[in-house]
Amino acid sequence: MPQRHGAVNKEVLAGRWARAHSDGMNWTDRFAQRTRLMRCSAVRELLQVASQPGIISFAGGLPAAELFPVSRVKAAADAVLERFGGQCLQYAETEGLPGLRDWIARQFSREHFTVERENVLITSGSQQALDLIGRVLLDEGDRVVVENPTYLALLSAWRPLGVEFLAVPSDSQGMQVDALEPLLQRQPKLIYLTPNFQNPQGTTLALERRERLVALLQKYEIPVVEDNPYGELRYDGKSLSNLLELDAGLPRTTHHAPRIPNHVIYAGTFSKVLMPGLRVGWVIADRQVIDKLVQAKQAADLHTNTLGQYLALELVTHGFLEEFLPVLRKAYRARRDLMLAALEKHFPKTASWTRPDGGMFLLVTLPGDVDTSELLPTALARKVAYVPGEEFHLNGEGKNTLRLNFSNAGPAQIEEGIRRLAGLL
Amino acid sequence: MPQRHGAVNKEVLAGRWARAHSDGMNWTDRFAQRTRLMRCSAVRELLQVASQPGIISFAGGLPAAELFPVSRVKAAADAVLERFGGQCLQYAETEGLPGLRDWIARQFSREHFTVERENVLITSGSQQALDLIGRVLLDEGDRVVVENPTYLALLSAWRPLGVEFLAVPSDSQGMQVDALEPLLQRQPKLIYLTPNFQNPQGTTLALERRERLVALLQKYEIPVVEDNPYGELRYDGKSLSNLLELDAGLPRTTHHAPRIPNHVIYAGTFSKVLMPGLRVGWVIADRQVIDKLVQAKQAADLHTNTLGQYLALELVTHGFLEEFLPVLRKAYRARRDLMLAALEKHFPKTASWTRPDGGMFLLVTLPGDVDTSELLPTALARKVAYVPGEEFHLNGEGKNTLRLNFSNAGPAQIEEGIRRLAGLL
Repeated sequence: MPQRHGAVNKEVLAGRWARAHSDGMNWTDRFAQRTRLMRCSAVRELLQVASQPGIISFAGGLPAAELFPVSRVKAAADAVLERFGGQCLQYAETEGLPGLRDWIARQFSREHFTVERENVLITSGSQQALDLIGRVLLDEGDRVVVENPTYLALLSAWRPLGVEFLAVPSDSQGMQVDALEPLLQRQPKLIYLTPNFQNPQGTTLALERRERLVALLQKYEIPVVEDNPYGELRYDGKSLSNLLELDAGLPRTTHHAPRIPNHVIYAGTFSKVLMPGLRVGWVIADRQVIDKLVQAKQAADLHTNTLGQYLALELVTHGFLEEFLPVLRKAYRARRDLMLAALEKHFPKTASWTRPDGGMFLLVTLPGDVDTSELLPTALARKVAYVPGEEFHLNGEGKNTLRLNFSNAGPAQIEEGIRRLAGLL
Repeated sequence: MPQRHGAVNKEVLAGRWARAHSDGMNWTDRFAQRTRLMRCSAVRELLQVASQPGIISFAGGLPAAELFPVSRVKAAADAVLERFGGQCLQYAETEGLPGLRDWIARQFSREHFTVERENVLITSGSQQALDLIGRVLLDEGDRVVVENPTYLALLSAWRPLGVEFLAVPSDSQGMQVDALEPLLQRQPKLIYLTPNFQNPQGTTLALERRERLVALLQKYEIPVVEDNPYGELRYDGKSLSNLLELDAGLPRTTHHAPRIPNHVIYAGTFSKVLMPGLRVGWVIADRQVIDKLVQAKQAADLHTNTLGQYLALELVTHGFLEEFLPVLRKAYRARRDLMLAALEKHFPKTASWTRPDGGMFLLVTLPGDVDTSELLPTALARKVAYVPGEEFHLNGEGKNTLRLNFSNAGPAQIEEGIRRLAGLL
């Protein structure tokens, strides 16, 4: 054993490491600097408290685990292990399981354009898709257009890259596309949005706005990241065309070869329609974009877990989504209706809220002088949890808003939780 | 539908997007710039060819999938789904499954120091551990000390960060620690090494060198990333203490509280001792390091796949490693011996190679004028694959070396594959 240089404990080591560095910053400060833009997520902290017994949580974005068809997953695991043996447990291609990429490609192909296997990359959930897109496409100082409010974990993933977010206001019809054009003149590198049942608002981008947006993408030649985790969870109204297919244009009338979508980088996931613990998502994009994302993914985690991909493919190719989606839609629609009714019954007239046609979330706006971050400890003390809306907003807006999830808490809890929340106001 | 601005195809779109940017670079160039340091990995390209039927592949770093106890995994999947239900398929904590973190903490605790749950982060394979460590700790221009040669995918993960690699030569006893001290005076941010059965050489850092290295870490107050995927796969000789426990010092003789290791960030994985397709690895480090890695992981992929973690925990807590490791060691030892005997028999006297005590790889050195990258297409044409050693080297060294994997090809293939390779020389 080497001679030790006196007693060392972890408190002083931070400083000891740092003294070896010429700039005099200590270890902890270096972390703080490197991660200065990774704000400690209130969602994560909350989830830890919110999972304690007795708390009614509207905080997380969790599906209803009691609906997961555990016996079907068991049967699928038995089947793939029987059929493919050790291959389900071995290293796999960075791009993803070929059969699963093919299935996704078929789902997104339309009469007027074809998505090929090479346009699809399987990712470790769609969160990884967003992370890889940022790492490959964004440089420090780049501008990115987002809705305001927007998905919290997108901000967490891209903030550390040092990008500038340009905020477009949104209303009950989604992003206000008319307010977008002046921002496009500032040459952003990317636009990010969630067209269906957006997190945190639950709002959906109207068809005319989608068409106008695609026209702007084409006019300004700017790509959009279309993040669509909730699209299949529609409870009212008719599904709207995604940006991917709108951008690919009208049905072909010429002899041009089928085109894959070009302005749209689409992020999808099985987390909301199968089970999030599988961590299986995907990106659809131009091959040149996919090639770079594959290189980044290889360095990030080699490949997405193999068994999860085999399970997802086994389930979807045996018609499981056709069975399971109606179950999810029915349950979540009922919970949304319960939550809307409870809000109507218990909340003051001075509050307002969104009325989503699908998804998992709605956003409540309280009178302007209420700060929902300050209210949160009291709410948790009364055993009800939500996420302060400020977390999802840019420019310090949204202090008087709160996000409520309606997919995870059971029907009986929803009424009681909303009653408790109303008691705070 | 919006009016389309003429026919668009993907070939011209790259230019169209780019024209919107003031710096005049086109889309493809921007990718090239952003990813200029992500060299297209020869390993990945090779793996695609090498998996074709008839090819004897010594290229990948794959375990022998035919040894995976598929029926045990089936039983474990049934058991955890039965016991925990939908929880195995639900979102989970970013830090990892608490029971699995506890199990790992116990494995790495020693009489003189304790690893706590809070010192452990579960990652999507140890590749993600390396990626996150780089993202959290390294800034552009930082220096990093590595062995030469070193693990290819570490270079792929950290090169895009813009760090400078300082290369320490290694020999049959591992990194030449005497050559390390002058480099430490250049104030590197981190040291990276694989002490046991290093990839690509198969060499192991001698105990005296480990002790000397730890003394240097303490003298210069520089952290080391100890990457130890192969440590349990030892076929000859006695296991050596890891840097983690050496750094924590001699057994406590004072009343100091147990210390967790401070100079060492340890990366471990189940990929080589259970099954890589689970994608379950871990980091052990100081809490302040873990806290920052957790934030980075949350943005990267939210959490490691849930079912894989439950399966790993179920297997290890039911004594599976005690059963399976002897099977792996016996099979891989026999394959290593076969490969060494075949090299002895078929390769020219002018070639030399390492003789690993464990792991999955050995490195062959051919006469100085042979370029193994140039030789590779001929090798593939004769249906045998390897990885050119240059890929693992810095400073353009190693052109006359090649890495051979001995864990994946079956016994009959090993003799034949080495015979084919020898025929090229």
